[in-house]
Amino acid sequence: MEQLPVLRHTLAHILASALTTTYPGKVKFGTGPDTDNGFYYDVFFDGLDFSEKHLPAIEKQMNKVIDQDLEIKHLEMTIDEALKWAKKEDQTFKVELINDLAKEGEKVVQLYQIGDFTDLCCGPHLKRTGEVPLGCFKLNKIGGAYWRADESREQMTRISGIAFATAEDLQAYETMIEEAEKRDHRKLGKDLDLFTFSPLVGAGLPMFTPRGTVLRDKLTDYSLSLRARHGFEKIWTPHITKTDLFKVSGHWDKFGDELFLVKSQETSDEFAMKPMNCPHQIQIYASRPRTYKDLPIRYMETTTDYRDEKKGELGGLSRVRALTQDDSHVFLRESQIKAEVGVLVKIVHELYNELGMSSLRARLSYRDDSGGYLGEPALWEKAQSYIKELAIENKLDYFEAEGEAAFYGPKIDFMARDAIGREHQVATIQIDFFMAGRFGLEFINEEGKKETPVMLHHATLGSIERFLSVFIEHTNGHFPFWLAPEQVRVITVNEQANDYAKQIAEILQDTTLEKPLRHNDLRFTLDLAKDNLSKKIKRGAEMKIPVMLIAGARDAEAKQVVARLGTEEQTIKLSQLAEFLRALK
Amino acid sequence: MEQLPVLRHTLAHILASALTTTYPGKVKFGTGPDTDNGFYYDVFFDGLDFSEKHLPAIEKQMNKVIDQDLEIKHLEMTIDEALKWAKKEDQTFKVELINDLAKEGEKVVQLYQIGDFTDLCCGPHLKRTGEVPLGCFKLNKIGGAYWRADESREQMTRISGIAFATAEDLQAYETMIEEAEKRDHRKLGKDLDLFTFSPLVGAGLPMFTPRGTVLRDKLTDYSLSLRARHGFEKIWTPHITKTDLFKVSGHWDKFGDELFLVKSQETSDEFAMKPMNCPHQIQIYASRPRTYKDLPIRYMETTTDYRDEKKGELGGLSRVRALTQDDSHVFLRESQIKAEVGVLVKIVHELYNELGMSSLRARLSYRDDSGGYLGEPALWEKAQSYIKELAIENKLDYFEAEGEAAFYGPKIDFMARDAIGREHQVATIQIDFFMAGRFGLEFINEEGKKETPVMLHHATLGSIERFLSVFIEHTNGHFPFWLAPEQVRVITVNEQANDYAKQIAEILQDTTLEKPLRHNDLRFTLDLAKDNLSKKIKRGAEMKIPVMLIAGARDAEAKQVVARLGTEEQTIKLSQLAEFLRALK
Repeated sequence: MEQLPVLRHTLAHILASALTTTYPGKVKFGTGPDTDNGFYYDVFFDGLDFSEKHLPAIEKQMNKVIDQDLEIKHLEMTIDEALKWAKKEDQTFKVELINDLAKEGEKVVQLYQIGDFTDLCCGPHLKRTGEVPLGCFKLNKIGGAYWRADESREQMTRISGIAFATAEDLQAYETMIEEAEKRDHRKLGKDLDLFTFSPLVGAGLPMFTPRGTVLRDKLTDYSLSLRARHGFEKIWTPHITKTDLFKVSGHWDKFGDELFLVKSQETSDEFAMKPMNCPHQIQIYASRPRTYKDLPIRYMETTTDYRDEKKGELGGLSRVRALTQDDSHVFLRESQIKAEVGVLVKIVHELYNELGMSSLRARLSYRDDSGGYLGEPALWEKAQSYIKELAIENKLDYFEAEGEAAFYGPKIDFMARDAIGREHQVATIQIDFFMAGRFGLEFINEEGKKETPVMLHHATLGSIERFLSVFIEHTNGHFPFWLAPEQVRVITVNEQANDYAKQIAEILQDTTLEKPLRHNDLRFTLDLAKDNLSKKIKRGAEMKIPVMLIAGARDAEAKQVVARLGTEEQTIKLSQLAEFLRALK
Repeated sequence: MEQLPVLRHTLAHILASALTTTYPGKVKFGTGPDTDNGFYYDVFFDGLDFSEKHLPAIEKQMNKVIDQDLEIKHLEMTIDEALKWAKKEDQTFKVELINDLAKEGEKVVQLYQIGDFTDLCCGPHLKRTGEVPLGCFKLNKIGGAYWRADESREQMTRISGIAFATAEDLQAYETMIEEAEKRDHRKLGKDLDLFTFSPLVGAGLPMFTPRGTVLRDKLTDYSLSLRARHGFEKIWTPHITKTDLFKVSGHWDKFGDELFLVKSQETSDEFAMKPMNCPHQIQIYASRPRTYKDLPIRYMETTTDYRDEKKGELGGLSRVRALTQDDSHVFLRESQIKAEVGVLVKIVHELYNELGMSSLRARLSYRDDSGGYLGEPALWEKAQSYIKELAIENKLDYFEAEGEAAFYGPKIDFMARDAIGREHQVATIQIDFFMAGRFGLEFINEEGKKETPVMLHHATLGSIERFLSVFIEHTNGHFPFWLAPEQVRVITVNEQANDYAKQIAEILQDTTLEKPLRHNDLRFTLDLAKDNLSKKIKRGAEMKIPVMLIAGARDAEAKQVVARLGTEEQTIKLSQLAEFLRALK
């Protein structure tokens, strides 16, 4: 087992021991696991008013336990012994847990002891409290949680902490969180005028302003262009469908209660909003006869799916109810899988490299033994072995995870690291031996016989909205030149330069950028306001315009402009302006 | 009154008189009006088996009545006299109509007489049957209709005819109909692989194949580019909303029962699919404070609306449930209306001119006295007088129509004529003094005070799907070069030319078209199949590829290709190929 979870789990126990020492007989313990960045313990205070202000004292007591370098002892008890212990301590939640273990057929239970404090737990833990590195943790939050996540049960107090392998790591994490708050995409979305929500339209349904729409469009155009180069063809499908379509695909059984249902007042047909696009795209494949010569057939689409997410889970663009996917489906023969996935891997790397998120990790997402997966296990094994071979062949930095597959097949899910070190799930490539068969898709092979194609499902950016939430924070709103909603702002020193600014505008009007997206007319504005220069520069800097072109009367005479990129300035001859801009990325 | 409706209406009476002569005492008459291309009469046959095969005899009898040049006499009767007449003739439907007239307070009723045949009718008619031009009409259809369009009433037989001012006009109309059937967009959509429907997805929900998607995208890109040139900015809004949005806008009261309702399984919020986009776009305006310096603010969007159309009314792309609009909204001051509408009129003319549908007529669509319109009549008068002034100032070929306004304001609706003479409603420009106020939109004027902006609503193509149904038939699938899904196909004479074809492909790869849409990569394919040349040319012609480039071994030597445009061929030097293609439109 990895060491960090053990450390964090041990800290949860040390927290519990500190609480017991501080409030003897007043604390009933629920469960105390490790988390992605630390640990928590859910506790029930018997008539005790516990709040944030009590955390420092508890933290101090925890450090005392660590200083004492106590042994952390592993005990075993029979069910009866354990029940006796828990009842004596008046730990009613533990009594419940022990009874559950008994019902599951356990004969003995595991416990750990720190000093006087004993807790039901199957470990593992550090050997001694002194092994906890100095200054590696902090208690940081108090929240609420229902016992066993059941609203009809007791309301517990959740005391959370953050913990890392060293004090330096903890410090780095805290700096990252601070930085993340500063670059919160919801705040930047407002400041940079990128998107908005309205209570009349509803939670999770963003509307994109002109600036935000440029970002959306340029990102999706780029994603489309990468795939077009490899034979992908754009198609268009509607946002609703009769539920029949999802009944055939299997989505209805799997996700029926997560769909927005659509009611026609004119017909008795039952409709739903599409939560993904494979079944629609399949209808286009099915619209004419296909032969082996046509394969692979590659469709791509930028289209909006609707998912009935819980209101409490919605936040900015991170999770929305209207999510636009840059979705692809490839229909092909099994013999074509490897080459085609290879191409998709290349596309993914090219895109994230261009966006400055190049250290991709790949999660190989396999099925587990639970139900809800389509088709025969033998085909799953084959599909999963393709996934692994492809990860190796394509030299992916991969790890494997059971239970993360789609219901129709295993996946390579790509995780991108952002500028402040957080990892986000982004692109996906999925191998599907089942869906085509459910829709009776066919192609005629070399012998004139019917065969069922295999399908690949792929998204490059994934949900544009979610990707934007990541990318806005990754760049802190300083978008690459080719993506910036307003790429260039021409700023006049004073009114004498207004005519010259218009002359500059004519050059900009004719400037087309070619990297990394071909044929982009330059997006620029003129700031001819009467304000003074520094105010105008400040205004441009606030909107994070990548290039400001400053022009005064003397510049007009010299046929030049001062290009300000961030805080750096350089003088550019007017005759070289277009070339200068075309070289930026 | 125009003469053609009078002729058509007279023919309905002559039809009735012919039926009476042929089946004395067996026919009860409902109503018999003129239509857009002829006339019909709804009749009830008392135990008579009437079918298509009886039409020639009736037509012959009608021509006999015309030959006899009978006088068409106008009569007046009191209600009592008329009732007596109708009862004596056993014309039960006419009895019902006369009773209704009596209820409405009429004292006398109008009748017309042709020979022995008398009919209730307020005319006008021709003076004599002999005035009907020779060979100007035909009986062409038998159908069914409920008396008074009420499903609980009698099922009538509708006998329809077509009629025009001259035999030549009738002939021209029949030729047009024949031509229209040949170029039916549903057939072309299938033959040219443009779009498809699926019973699993549902009626009225088209899916666009790669070829059809090129058409959609290029048309909408062009429409966007025309508006972008005039300061319009693209935005993005979701396809659903809480119904609250439409309750504020007034759409809920007006169209509530024509919406697709959306049910969330997670929240109790009531949602609907948007049937239009103004309320969503308004939310973006409302997302920040605005001043007079910001106006006009011009938003544009290509987005899909959903309307719960009756299944029986759906047909191909002509009427769909998923309709994509190239929709714009301008927020401006009253003083800016004239200039801004002038710009929109220019955009409309430029677009339809480019698409070869240049003879636009404008319908000035006013309100009528019925209810259901927003706001005060005085503002309507002002808005309508702007509409009329603008039609005159912009030299539109206009006509006026009451009762055709939107519920929030009057419109200029543009009608385009297609290649076979049919007129279709296309673009629209609407002046709206009300909607902004309902949403509390504001801007700060020069005096620092709050003002409510005026809104213009505009669509250039309108519904892309409906426009495509028109345009596919208008062009008969021979799309202009810049719009063709596959613009160029390189065809090899035999295998010896395959390498040369790839050399040609490299040139095509680098060729970018600039008219009328900037920066278009050429869309081309290679046909290197082993089939003979004529078969390959036939294949290309069937797909209506505008340019085929034929290349053989001798062409390779001479560094040239044979460009085939339709049935015309010309030889082009390879060095001039890109230039040749760039000059096409």
